[in-house]
Amino acid sequence: MIIVLKREATQGEIDHIVKKVEQLGLRSMISRGVERTIIGVIGDEAIVRSQPLEVYPGVERVIPVLAPYKLASREYKKEDSVIPLSPTVSIGGRKIIMFAGPCSVESKELLMSVGRTVKEAGAEVLRGGAFKPRSSPYDFQGLGEEGLRYLREVADETGLLVVTELMDPRDTELVERYADVIQIGARNIQNFNLLKEVGNSKKPVFLKRGMMATVREFLLSAEYIISHGNPNVILCERGIRTFETATRFTLDLNAVPLIKRLSHLPVVVDPSHGTGKYNLVGPMAKAAVACGADGLMIEVHPNPEEAFSDGEQSLLPRKFKELMSELAPIAASVGRTI
Amino acid sequence: MIIVLKREATQGEIDHIVKKVEQLGLRSMISRGVERTIIGVIGDEAIVRSQPLEVYPGVERVIPVLAPYKLASREYKKEDSVIPLSPTVSIGGRKIIMFAGPCSVESKELLMSVGRTVKEAGAEVLRGGAFKPRSSPYDFQGLGEEGLRYLREVADETGLLVVTELMDPRDTELVERYADVIQIGARNIQNFNLLKEVGNSKKPVFLKRGMMATVREFLLSAEYIISHGNPNVILCERGIRTFETATRFTLDLNAVPLIKRLSHLPVVVDPSHGTGKYNLVGPMAKAAVACGADGLMIEVHPNPEEAFSDGEQSLLPRKFKELMSELAPIAASVGRTI
Amino acid sequence: MIIVLKREATQGEIDHIVKKVEQLGLRSMISRGVERTIIGVIGDEAIVRSQPLEVYPGVERVIPVLAPYKLASREYKKEDSVIPLSPTVSIGGRKIIMFAGPCSVESKELLMSVGRTVKEAGAEVLRGGAFKPRSSPYDFQGLGEEGLRYLREVADETGLLVVTELMDPRDTELVERYADVIQIGARNIQNFNLLKEVGNSKKPVFLKRGMMATVREFLLSAEYIISHGNPNVILCERGIRTFETATRFTLDLNAVPLIKRLSHLPVVVDPSHGTGKYNLVGPMAKAAVACGADGLMIEVHPNPEEAFSDGEQSLLPRKFKELMSELAPIAASVGRTI
Amino acid sequence: MIIVLKREATQGEIDHIVKKVEQLGLRSMISRGVERTIIGVIGDEAIVRSQPLEVYPGVERVIPVLAPYKLASREYKKEDSVIPLSPTVSIGGRKIIMFAGPCSVESKELLMSVGRTVKEAGAEVLRGGAFKPRSSPYDFQGLGEEGLRYLREVADETGLLVVTELMDPRDTELVERYADVIQIGARNIQNFNLLKEVGNSKKPVFLKRGMMATVREFLLSAEYIISHGNPNVILCERGIRTFETATRFTLDLNAVPLIKRLSHLPVVVDPSHGTGKYNLVGPMAKAAVACGADGLMIEVHPNPEEAFSDGEQSLLPRKFKELMSELAPIAASVGRTI
Repeated sequence: MIIVLKREATQGEIDHIVKKVEQLGLRSMISRGVERTIIGVIGDEAIVRSQPLEVYPGVERVIPVLAPYKLASREYKKEDSVIPLSPTVSIGGRKIIMFAGPCSVESKELLMSVGRTVKEAGAEVLRGGAFKPRSSPYDFQGLGEEGLRYLREVADETGLLVVTELMDPRDTELVERYADVIQIGARNIQNFNLLKEVGNSKKPVFLKRGMMATVREFLLSAEYIISHGNPNVILCERGIRTFETATRFTLDLNAVPLIKRLSHLPVVVDPSHGTGKYNLVGPMAKAAVACGADGLMIEVHPNPEEAFSDGEQSLLPRKFKELMSELAPIAASVGRTI
Repeated sequence: MIIVLKREATQGEIDHIVKKVEQLGLRSMISRGVERTIIGVIGDEAIVRSQPLEVYPGVERVIPVLAPYKLASREYKKEDSVIPLSPTVSIGGRKIIMFAGPCSVESKELLMSVGRTVKEAGAEVLRGGAFKPRSSPYDFQGLGEEGLRYLREVADETGLLVVTELMDPRDTELVERYADVIQIGARNIQNFNLLKEVGNSKKPVFLKRGMMATVREFLLSAEYIISHGNPNVILCERGIRTFETATRFTLDLNAVPLIKRLSHLPVVVDPSHGTGKYNLVGPMAKAAVACGADGLMIEVHPNPEEAFSDGEQSLLPRKFKELMSELAPIAASVGRTI
Repeated sequence: MIIVLKREATQGEIDHIVKKVEQLGLRSMISRGVERTIIGVIGDEAIVRSQPLEVYPGVERVIPVLAPYKLASREYKKEDSVIPLSPTVSIGGRKIIMFAGPCSVESKELLMSVGRTVKEAGAEVLRGGAFKPRSSPYDFQGLGEEGLRYLREVADETGLLVVTELMDPRDTELVERYADVIQIGARNIQNFNLLKEVGNSKKPVFLKRGMMATVREFLLSAEYIISHGNPNVILCERGIRTFETATRFTLDLNAVPLIKRLSHLPVVVDPSHGTGKYNLVGPMAKAAVACGADGLMIEVHPNPEEAFSDGEQSLLPRKFKELMSELAPIAASVGRTI
Repeated sequence: MIIVLKREATQGEIDHIVKKVEQLGLRSMISRGVERTIIGVIGDEAIVRSQPLEVYPGVERVIPVLAPYKLASREYKKEDSVIPLSPTVSIGGRKIIMFAGPCSVESKELLMSVGRTVKEAGAEVLRGGAFKPRSSPYDFQGLGEEGLRYLREVADETGLLVVTELMDPRDTELVERYADVIQIGARNIQNFNLLKEVGNSKKPVFLKRGMMATVREFLLSAEYIISHGNPNVILCERGIRTFETATRFTLDLNAVPLIKRLSHLPVVVDPSHGTGKYNLVGPMAKAAVACGADGLMIEVHPNPEEAFSDGEQSLLPRKFKELMSELAPIAASVGRTI
């Protein structure tokens, strides 16, 4: 932690700060420049971080030196985390993992038809929402437990795994019962009690970046989960909110190589939510693979005209198959399989 | 709802859309321009809104005509909502209501000292967090029920009311037991199950705008609460996230007069969180009153150097008193009291 | 300047950096913490700022300590700058200065009619664009020199001063001939050659914040002008671009008290462009005065239905008069006149 | 153009609008819905666009139907524009074109060394700034004409073409004399006089997206150039400004496939400026190729530690060569060469 003092800071003010630092069990080092004096605080930064040093008289600015997350950081763990989703499937290794399925679970028939196609095309995990976060109270809110049951049945019959969203801490056991991977949605990225809840789960967590979350906050939310005991966190970039309205969100692919440097956790990209437009899904999926994504989450629906939600960003099963074959050579170009 | 067709849309595609519209029990009206054909959909827009019309062949763009919220809209209710917080205090009328207190509840002594001062200075509601949403798992997370109890005791002794944050649907009854007004924090603006929960409560809800929520989404979240049975929603602008990093957030005062036109609900401004800097709190509080805010929420702490959270944006009790006296003539200038 | 090293930085890397710092004529001070070593660079920060120290082996991050602007800073000049616009009118003192008029100069008659009303209502400066920056090549581009002539004639007849935009360095002398204050528009905030040009002018400069400019960049653009010899810079907040689309821009009033702390220059607010909606102009004008603005720029048009540009954000002359009388008590509340 | 009326709009207000529309030589079509009446305006939308219809009594909202740009649109020209840069090199076809070189021209020796390497590695165009837009007046501002001369000499000797930035309309002839392609920088995206100037040039224009420009505004700026007579516009995505500060900008790759749908113009991606970090340049360059970019602009410097500007985002010549060989199979995967 570095404390930059105001130009006019007095010796009394400096002494006051140094004393406070010592009371916290830390050491300080004073450096007098031409225009400013700076105090370096040496010791565990976590201790100082929660102190409102900015309000001390004479202080102009406080600059943290370390990232506020530890367990999620590449510094803490040098090698990539490879997270098992089942005895045979894991993410974070050489193989790029595909999560595919409809936005919402609508009926068992539809889910089965999508499940069969995506499995055949090479997907490993079936996605589908049983609990749907919808910005309007008048929109379809999901089938609830019935939807979870369909997901499990279709996955078991087709040889897929299940990822589905948990929205409410009271549903944790229910979702755990049906899902292989628990998804935390973008709108719950800072629902800290929900993060603690899945931090206590044995199931891997699929954590979607909030539309307003910085990469730093995204990794802090992962830290919540890991620090509560669950190291199996998969990060998913799904678009941030910017001034641009021509796309639903701005899919931030920069986050992929950036997070791979800052953290050891696997990174998945969701170009369906990230762009909101089915005809941008293919190009952005390719781009995601090219820049190092460990997986993709893609919405597939046999009849987008009739989808209960997000029809405008879903691929037809046929288009999903085509995309899979187009992704293979790009994956190979960056030393991966798909 | 207006459907703009692609230049090259065929008659068959137009017929297909018209048929779909009729199946939904609505009427359509076709208008052929020089460069585009447009289909106006007449009838209940809520029915069409959830249809993914954008994926229909021939469709270029779908434009909703009405706002997606109803009960929260000024159109639904012309006159300002005046919301009772207690038998003697209400918000939305001529008097500007002050919500003041520390960021977190830290101890009963401290809370009592702050409570006494803010009451004396003219505040009606004591704020203080018992459950704290903190972006780092290593930061102070609040005193929980103990904090709620202190809030109630201090409020009762000083003649204040209590507003405090509910973060978890499992704590609803607990918070209701102690609080007069239930706060939903910015990070939970789209925690829809929590919104439904307080929609079933008898207590007024203090809903903070998410740092990434558009005014439209903010009003949709209010709609969730109202449509579940609780009409007593107080909206609070507390800063949005922008590219500017010199302030913690960008307090968006434009939202005050804008929401007053779009909705009948009262609007409070929180310049403490909105700016993150104690020396900007005063000027922005004045500006909020000048542009029509119905209330202010302000953080007050007797010793910001020792605050457990947000010390850098808290006012000293003495400064809060000064601010109150500076606000009075501005309130008078816009026909209000404080 | 503070250089934070990577955890694994070697002694050789540290020596390499220290040597570089010494070659620049500066001193370095090494501070070894538990997790990181930090090098403080002592001496003129401007020298180090342009060095790409981030690419040196072993370096994790480089943190500047000082603001990159000097002449524009409050540290350089403690007291408020009071800038003379004419022998009798100046800005930055107790009196709040009003800049009012139509968006574009359309005809002499119209300008005269607006000029008379705003003068009568208490405005000091007539605004109006002769050269218009329009995002579409098919929109009205301004009357050019004819417009400048009308501005001068109306100002002289009514006793107002003239502020008008300079868009092209080739027009500098022309605009100087007619205007009392030269406006640099938001889209030219980083048109550095234009900034240098007005830095050589004897006329005061009215510099509008770019819709994407941070406060730091805004002050750096002012620094360009001052460092080229013209200290008379008036800063104007006119709305930034954010994710919110309900208003044309997000008028950032936080910038007013923030800039007043960081800089000695006067700050004007333009709620017409900042909100893009005539019914938000009044409330935001009041808020601007309440939070410390030194002036306001407001668009006035007698017949917004027929305006060549920005009709939707113009006030009727009658409404402008009303606003002036509503602003007076707010100005008085903050110790100002208008 | 669609005009949505207020719920309470009167027949008199409707008649007033219809009359105005007819005076403009257009037709209107009234559609009365359950909650709103809508007026469709039929005829040339450009005529209505500049009318401030929003201020007419009874009007709630005005919605344009068509994009405001024409000549730049895919609708105007179905097939991709292939733009000749020289008799033998063109962009927009099957071959992906590489623009590479240092940020600034610093010396002839350095430029020659970079030029030789990038040519050898497969680049077609040498980049380098002779006039530098720098946010601080105290930073290196470029070598001016001397820099232009070096660019030309190195290009001629190595068999490359030259792209370089024009910042000032007064330098147009000078830059045209030395450059094959004229660059308009991000900060000048709405410097409309400069756009008109290059609209009159015979040389192709390399137009960089502003950090705050929507795709719509970006295409409108291209429209300025084309409508003044120069159809040879190359668009360059180089990062937008968002709330994320971990990268210098947020490179918006979504814009690539989106613009390819909306426009016939070629799209280049600049991952050096777009990310501001040399270790993200490679992954994002690969992603750009994968999602359909027609070219890449990449900063290369033999000694980033000594670069006069942007050293932290420059690749070493050796790394540029490696990248070129890594890009080749990705280009092949999407049916392109490089």
